[in-house]
Amino acid sequence: MARVVVDVMLKPEILDPQGQAVQRALPRLGFEGVADVRQGKRFELELAGPVDEAALERVREMARTFLANTVIEDFRVRVAEEVEEEGVGR
Amino acid sequence: MARVVVDVMLKPEILDPQGQAVQRALPRLGFEGVADVRQGKRFELELAGPVDEAALERVREMARTFLANTVIEDFRVRVAEEVEEEGVGR
Repeated sequence: MARVVVDVMLKPEILDPQGQAVQRALPRLGFEGVADVRQGKRFELELAGPVDEAALERVREMARTFLANTVIEDFRVRVAEEVEEEGVGR
Repeated sequence: MARVVVDVMLKPEILDPQGQAVQRALPRLGFEGVADVRQGKRFELELAGPVDEAALERVREMARTFLANTVIEDFRVRVAEEVEEEGVGR
C-alpha cells in the first residue's frame, strides 16, 4: 500500500484566525520569535493500487473537488517519503 | 525568514472519525481505491531567527506542550523545503 499526502492550507491572502490565535498564545507560553503561524489540514490517503501518475491525478481531482475549497485554499499532493515516517513524536 | 512545518496526526491506534467520513464519501463521489484516510493538522511557523538545532528544539517543545495532544497525537517537526513550495494548487 502506498501513502499519498494532501496538504490543504488557506491561501496566503486569506486571513487565518486559527493560526493567529496560536501565534498570539505562544509568547504567553514562553515561546518567542515566531513571526507567523498558519494552520491547515493534512490528509494521509492509503491507495490500494500503485501510485503512478494516473493515481496522483485522481488524488488531485479529489483534492480539487472535495478535500480543499479552492476558492480560499491551496492544496499540494505528494507521495509520502519513507524519511517522513521517521522521527514521529520527536 | 525560515519556515518550519509541524504535522500533527492522531496516533495510528486512535480512531479517526473525520478521516473515516472522508473515506466513506469518496466512493459516492466516484473515487475508488482509497483504502484508508487519516486527517490531521499542519502548522506552518515562520521563525524570526535562524533555524538551527536550538530553534528546532524550541519548536518541538511547542508541539509537545501546545500544538499536539501527545496522549492521542503524534507530531513531526521539519524545516520546509523549497521543493515543497512548488506545485501549490496542483
